[in-house]
Amino acid sequence: MNPIDLGSLAERFELSLTGDRGHVVSGLATLKYATPDDLAFLANPSYASQLADCRAGAVILGAEHAGRFTGNCLISKDPYVDWARVSGFLNPPPAATAGIHPSAVIASDAAIADSASIGAQVSIGTGCRIGERVTIGPGCVLENDVEISDDARLVARVFIGHRSRLGKRVIVHPGVVIGADGFGLAFERDHWIKVPQLGRVVIGDDCEIGANTTIDRGAIDDTELGEDVRLDNQVQIAHNVRIGAHTAIAGCVGIAGSTRIGRYCMIAGASGIGGHLEICDKVVITAMSTVLESITEPGHYGSGIPARPQRQWQRILVRLGQLDDWFRRLRKTEQSTNLSNDRHE
Amino acid sequence: MNPIDLGSLAERFELSLTGDRGHVVSGLATLKYATPDDLAFLANPSYASQLADCRAGAVILGAEHAGRFTGNCLISKDPYVDWARVSGFLNPPPAATAGIHPSAVIASDAAIADSASIGAQVSIGTGCRIGERVTIGPGCVLENDVEISDDARLVARVFIGHRSRLGKRVIVHPGVVIGADGFGLAFERDHWIKVPQLGRVVIGDDCEIGANTTIDRGAIDDTELGEDVRLDNQVQIAHNVRIGAHTAIAGCVGIAGSTRIGRYCMIAGASGIGGHLEICDKVVITAMSTVLESITEPGHYGSGIPARPQRQWQRILVRLGQLDDWFRRLRKTEQSTNLSNDRHE
Amino acid sequence: MNPIDLGSLAERFELSLTGDRGHVVSGLATLKYATPDDLAFLANPSYASQLADCRAGAVILGAEHAGRFTGNCLISKDPYVDWARVSGFLNPPPAATAGIHPSAVIASDAAIADSASIGAQVSIGTGCRIGERVTIGPGCVLENDVEISDDARLVARVFIGHRSRLGKRVIVHPGVVIGADGFGLAFERDHWIKVPQLGRVVIGDDCEIGANTTIDRGAIDDTELGEDVRLDNQVQIAHNVRIGAHTAIAGCVGIAGSTRIGRYCMIAGASGIGGHLEICDKVVITAMSTVLESITEPGHYGSGIPARPQRQWQRILVRLGQLDDWFRRLRKTEQSTNLSNDRHE
Repeated sequence: MNPIDLGSLAERFELSLTGDRGHVVSGLATLKYATPDDLAFLANPSYASQLADCRAGAVILGAEHAGRFTGNCLISKDPYVDWARVSGFLNPPPAATAGIHPSAVIASDAAIADSASIGAQVSIGTGCRIGERVTIGPGCVLENDVEISDDARLVARVFIGHRSRLGKRVIVHPGVVIGADGFGLAFERDHWIKVPQLGRVVIGDDCEIGANTTIDRGAIDDTELGEDVRLDNQVQIAHNVRIGAHTAIAGCVGIAGSTRIGRYCMIAGASGIGGHLEICDKVVITAMSTVLESITEPGHYGSGIPARPQRQWQRILVRLGQLDDWFRRLRKTEQSTNLSNDRHE
Repeated sequence: MNPIDLGSLAERFELSLTGDRGHVVSGLATLKYATPDDLAFLANPSYASQLADCRAGAVILGAEHAGRFTGNCLISKDPYVDWARVSGFLNPPPAATAGIHPSAVIASDAAIADSASIGAQVSIGTGCRIGERVTIGPGCVLENDVEISDDARLVARVFIGHRSRLGKRVIVHPGVVIGADGFGLAFERDHWIKVPQLGRVVIGDDCEIGANTTIDRGAIDDTELGEDVRLDNQVQIAHNVRIGAHTAIAGCVGIAGSTRIGRYCMIAGASGIGGHLEICDKVVITAMSTVLESITEPGHYGSGIPARPQRQWQRILVRLGQLDDWFRRLRKTEQSTNLSNDRHE
Repeated sequence: MNPIDLGSLAERFELSLTGDRGHVVSGLATLKYATPDDLAFLANPSYASQLADCRAGAVILGAEHAGRFTGNCLISKDPYVDWARVSGFLNPPPAATAGIHPSAVIASDAAIADSASIGAQVSIGTGCRIGERVTIGPGCVLENDVEISDDARLVARVFIGHRSRLGKRVIVHPGVVIGADGFGLAFERDHWIKVPQLGRVVIGDDCEIGANTTIDRGAIDDTELGEDVRLDNQVQIAHNVRIGAHTAIAGCVGIAGSTRIGRYCMIAGASGIGGHLEICDKVVITAMSTVLESITEPGHYGSGIPARPQRQWQRILVRLGQLDDWFRRLRKTEQSTNLSNDRHE
């Protein structure tokens, strides 16, 4: 990153600065490893004790922690958000060179903006439209009639199936498969018949799709992600799922077919959501939970079980298997107790 | 798709038609969005209420629902199967152009049928045999001595390890890795030694493998899929697993090494199956279940827990931890009750 | 493999041979399928009964089983380790031809050892350093400033993000994504802001990374794997995770951000480990468990639930939902019993 003085940073991001306006930072680091040339931040209060020994050239932090750092402070109402903004400003995504690498194979009728960057070994099918300043990194494959909007970035080795449409500024990480066939099968007597998958995948502006995530095309209608949906790595989105704007989904989550997820939901890692469900806005699913019914009220939901020492857990498993029997015994004991009490009353 | 009249459809698929034999459909759509140019279908009875306002040019449906639709009906005993057949007929997979793309890198001794289509940036190793009308899409990598049978289709960016063998009409979606080394390790004193993985992957006719699924080669013997096995996306099949014909496995399922799955099984999403097990024919595993013992009787099995509001779930977790203690208390109460009852008898 | 006589094998691997020193084996096989030309092994005692009918030219086995096999025995203190060593010696990884395939696209300033093998359709960015005898298989993409140490092998279609560093002899299987951006997001009022991911991925010597596994780059500091870490397929390692030497992680495991895993841990399939945790050395996590708290004592931990017949499981689920209520009833019954007992005392 280019060096910048703290006064300029404070002004640009409307942060209040205590300390040396002229001090120049040229790197970003954690509190623990920062040198006087680095900018650091404090968002999670449990790291506040590191301020005492911190050597950073400046720290972005809340006013409540400023007294604990003797160096330069950039005081923020939301240090993590301001860190994201400052860090994003200082580390813009690599500006890819406009133009088409000679090893790319491009259909003659594909419409590719002059400002787009098409990398090595890319394959682009007939009828594709690639917007301004789009980056398509090495090894990506776009089937026919794909539309990639302005400023989107396909990092590398991404597959986009025919007729898919990606919004502006969408980021797609390596290994992602968008628009493969959904898992559509009909069982006829003694074997499966494939049901053609005719819908598209439509992804809104500002979405980010993590590495090796898969998003299937719709069976007839489309699979849809609203704007600003954020998917982590190895997420599986089945055909005809619709995900509302601003929803974030952590790694290894699977969502079965035709389920609709609301806006501003957060789904923690490795959870599974069944098919044909409706999850309303602002639902939080905790880690490794299984959602098998629709959810109509915002709030937190879960069914993950924290691990214990294996012997303890084995005893609980044994007890789980006995629950039904024990419930009957409890009922009997209750009756017996009532009986014995009754006799005395 | 090419336009077709309802009379021709009824005849070809042995459906009984009520309505206008000459009406022409040129698209497929859901009941909700169909126009008079579209064919639609009704398989799930919960959508039957949509028939009232449906504008479709014709609907494939069961006789029991025909009275609820005023338009043209194609009456079927199994509407979903007939939809699959009709839709497959009207939407054949894209006919790839026979021939080898000039950017593909092909070993000189690979035997490739003239009718096969080899896409851009493909790499095919020595000794490979590629059958009639096979399609190998852009970016696929075939190591040495791979055999791909007639009419198979590797969509794009598929990896096939050396000596693997794929049956006829197999479909492999993007990002799939077939024939990588299994997870074979021996622990010697203080470090791991890699155990060479010498087996193959052998995949039967008519299988379909979903995006980013992985199937490891066998350690010594082969990893095998029978015919018509259907795997969804992000499934993990470890070394020496054998899967019986017509079994379907949904997304994100993992199957550990040397396990044998029967024929006509169905494994729902995100389930895990341990190693060295035998699962008999016609077993259904419900979503997000963990199978740790062999199953010898057909039927449904599961251990997934549906999510609840997090506070409710937290209370249940607390109770789970107390189960063992609670069981002791119940036993004591029983004895005490018997005691008190005994005293009176 | 090249044929070898048993005497030579016994000598090289310090095994004690009973039988014909001059017998030559030219293949490896399981006890069940071995022919007189094959070497087999017995490690798992449950297969010992197969010795009776075994036709193998020789079997590597423990002294305690030697009496049950009438053929040639190579007697070992740890048959699986010796099998791994013998098998590795007889099946060295394919020696790739040194040199750069003409279809590869290599930055002019990349430093590539003459003994390295760069495959078809590979893309290597500026500033990369590729060590001696490294193999980079077809379709791999290396961004800028990547360092691959001597004797490492990227099988095919691997992505390595900028500034990542891989140690010596590391093996990376197809579809792996190393060094994609971590899932770093800050929520500002009504939308997400991407937090730039500035750290690297640093992988120690002798690691092996399974197919379609993902390892994200650090947010600020690095994501790190110690030496001899073994990851199976479809594992997800989030940003800033650190994994100690000799730890093995089975398929489909996910580890959330900033968690530190100790040395010599074993994590079974499909388990999930939360973020910001510390797992000490020599911890074993059983299959499909959820770890949500730090672990400070070596040992086995788990929370996976074995599947049962679905009806049984449904009853247990009903009981789980009633636990809280039943606990209250038990307490009441206890009091009532005490009461009734007290009355009599």
